[in-house]
Amino acid sequence: MNDPSTTEPFGPANTKPWEQLEECLDRGDGAEAGPFLERIGYAEAARSLSRLDRRHRERLLSCLEPEAAAELLEHLPDAESASMLESTEPEVAASVFEELSSDTQADVLVTLQPENAEALLAALDPVVADAAIDLAKFAPDTAGGLMVREFLSYDQRDSAAQIVNDLRSRIGEVEDYAVQYIYVTGPRAGLVGVLRLRDLLFARNMKPASELMIGDPLSVRTDATLDDLADLFEARSFLGIPVLDESFALVGVVHKRDVDAALDERAESSRMRAQGIVGGEELRFMPLRLRSVRRLSWLSVNILLNLAAASVIAMHQDTLQSVIVLAVFLPMISDMSGCSGNQAVAVSMRELTLGIVRPIDVLYVWRKELQVGLVNGAALGVLVGLLAWAWQGDPMLGVVVGVALAVNTLVAVSIGGVVPLLLQRFKVDPALASGPILTTLTDVCGFLLALTLASAILT
Amino acid sequence: MNDPSTTEPFGPANTKPWEQLEECLDRGDGAEAGPFLERIGYAEAARSLSRLDRRHRERLLSCLEPEAAAELLEHLPDAESASMLESTEPEVAASVFEELSSDTQADVLVTLQPENAEALLAALDPVVADAAIDLAKFAPDTAGGLMVREFLSYDQRDSAAQIVNDLRSRIGEVEDYAVQYIYVTGPRAGLVGVLRLRDLLFARNMKPASELMIGDPLSVRTDATLDDLADLFEARSFLGIPVLDESFALVGVVHKRDVDAALDERAESSRMRAQGIVGGEELRFMPLRLRSVRRLSWLSVNILLNLAAASVIAMHQDTLQSVIVLAVFLPMISDMSGCSGNQAVAVSMRELTLGIVRPIDVLYVWRKELQVGLVNGAALGVLVGLLAWAWQGDPMLGVVVGVALAVNTLVAVSIGGVVPLLLQRFKVDPALASGPILTTLTDVCGFLLALTLASAILT
Repeated sequence: MNDPSTTEPFGPANTKPWEQLEECLDRGDGAEAGPFLERIGYAEAARSLSRLDRRHRERLLSCLEPEAAAELLEHLPDAESASMLESTEPEVAASVFEELSSDTQADVLVTLQPENAEALLAALDPVVADAAIDLAKFAPDTAGGLMVREFLSYDQRDSAAQIVNDLRSRIGEVEDYAVQYIYVTGPRAGLVGVLRLRDLLFARNMKPASELMIGDPLSVRTDATLDDLADLFEARSFLGIPVLDESFALVGVVHKRDVDAALDERAESSRMRAQGIVGGEELRFMPLRLRSVRRLSWLSVNILLNLAAASVIAMHQDTLQSVIVLAVFLPMISDMSGCSGNQAVAVSMRELTLGIVRPIDVLYVWRKELQVGLVNGAALGVLVGLLAWAWQGDPMLGVVVGVALAVNTLVAVSIGGVVPLLLQRFKVDPALASGPILTTLTDVCGFLLALTLASAILT
Repeated sequence: MNDPSTTEPFGPANTKPWEQLEECLDRGDGAEAGPFLERIGYAEAARSLSRLDRRHRERLLSCLEPEAAAELLEHLPDAESASMLESTEPEVAASVFEELSSDTQADVLVTLQPENAEALLAALDPVVADAAIDLAKFAPDTAGGLMVREFLSYDQRDSAAQIVNDLRSRIGEVEDYAVQYIYVTGPRAGLVGVLRLRDLLFARNMKPASELMIGDPLSVRTDATLDDLADLFEARSFLGIPVLDESFALVGVVHKRDVDAALDERAESSRMRAQGIVGGEELRFMPLRLRSVRRLSWLSVNILLNLAAASVIAMHQDTLQSVIVLAVFLPMISDMSGCSGNQAVAVSMRELTLGIVRPIDVLYVWRKELQVGLVNGAALGVLVGLLAWAWQGDPMLGVVVGVALAVNTLVAVSIGGVVPLLLQRFKVDPALASGPILTTLTDVCGFLLALTLASAILT
């Protein structure tokens, strides 16, 4: 019996797995690398890979058995799998590629540089090549792009005994396909039912599939979107849904786990964009040039946004000079309002994800945020106003700072709550754009409030 | 054949599902509500629920059949399920509770107010009550807290035919348990193997389970953590793992989907904390008081952090007054550095999640961030420096602003990259604390740099 606390996947605690892997490769005897990866697990291996130096990375695939190499690639992001295949000789790459599952084949194929894709396709078994090209035609986040071609189907006239006998002879395949359901087809490969292994288990030998199956099964077309699929898997506890082409022929199966993975990937990418990592995943083993350029592309947009807030201050420079103590509180107003607005953004994004609000519910959200904004604005305004008074000894300074913060909190939660809905409605990614829009508007508004109030009351 | 594009879950497009549900309840005939929920799907129903007014929410559970009510609760957050049960009479609540899966029972039980939990337990079948209390003792994010007690196990001496016959007689249960594996036990309920349905399918009638099973199965103890479980499910493609108690007896099964759900919940909660929603989930149908207080508790900590940056400006007020134009650029330095730092935080959080870096890799991360910081700091410094010169016509102002931003970018990416690792190492939630620490330190450092440089060069 295994106790997870004792299944430490590394060797000696002070030798890192990637160092052990490099040693394996250095000893020239690549055959060791395969069992080593198996031992540490392919998920851990995929992590270690990112810490290998380039020379070792490039040699790894050719050292492994094609099955082991393919298993490793299945655990890597598509971009990384593609780059590993590109740095391997086409013949070796082809033998690894043939061991990949059909959906990974398609994903990797569209990620390869065109000239490398051609070299690879030329080295492949033409049947595998055609199948991969076929699948690669589907958009990635659709049923066609997510489905696998590996499934089991039988004609509706086949008997339980025939099916069991055939399964028995294909037991290896059955294992590989992680089969939960067997599909039953009628004329022209049209899907007419789903047969569960457990129903086959309890069946009389001579019963035909048509009497054992669950009829009128749920299915999707190849162009069903990721959101369609997510809704279906959420509503029903299926592990896979059959996919039909335009002529209603069964062409593949979308597995729940692949839909979940695609959803995770999309959510993760949106989270990274919200924090300014735009244009693709960044991991620190990637080239410096790529990392710098991607980050800078986002930061330079940010300079332009900042000019708006800077202009407000520039226009009120004289006021600020005569009430210089206000400069102490401007960053605080800016930061506090930003935080209040961000809280509202977070709740809106969460409610959009859960489907509790829809892009059309702008007024509902605004009303709910105004309530919080009134309470929190009043509380924060009084708190920071008193603080300003106590610190600088000027009650009117407290009034200016407090009122500016109170009103700007109301503005910030309104913007923060409503902007994600509006962006979604106009098909702009709310994760990417909500933050910058919020910061720019709350800064402009906060500085304007504070400086206008100051010029009226304090000068 | 179903096409998802035609399976619109709502009725007429202009009547919202919660309005239809309210009408159902208002017509007095609650029996309609059950089929209505079934028709729109329980996931959609869970969403609609948040838009019902209180009166209708409170009446809903008592209108439904216990099975339907339980199915609905399975789709709600535990806090919401508990509050729905609390507003229902204990006898009705008990009959609904008995239909919940064992893990949901335990989760809901610990979420109820103590006096309500007692009332519910008193109204329950004692066997159900004891089982729920037993399960509720386990910490929520452990194998004990995540496992279900519903599983199938047979003695190793049972034959294939005996097992199939018994399964046949319990087909309803088998359906409910979503069975993939059957567990095989030896003396004292000790787990000795796992039997797959498909192996049973191909078995000779008289073979005992001990010859059909896969021996020495992977298992966990009740105290295995969520991270242990995540690692196991990531490394192996299992749908469930058996759970053993201190005496190695089989007591439950942890399903992959429950581990995935717990991981999602944890990630979501950490994401919300990163954006200042602290102390529990906020959804806009929650009471205003709760929403305001939770948000304020976080904002008031933020005031204290802001005082650090404000103090820097207060100490250099004279410098600022004599070079008032610098006030135009201070918010820009603060915001740009914050953005650069946030990018580094995002990459560190991502790499921590993927396991590519570990809390001990501080130096590796710092080195990688310094490289980006040098390039991006130089680029941004030159850009903003030239901008300041061009806008205000003072080359030395450009130097002060540019140098301050360049150096502060280096500081920001260092802090942003390293702080999440340090926090993780000292067991502080990096999602919660990285942002505020970053903002405070970069503001203090940026203002200090700009104002000190200005007092040396510009005054």
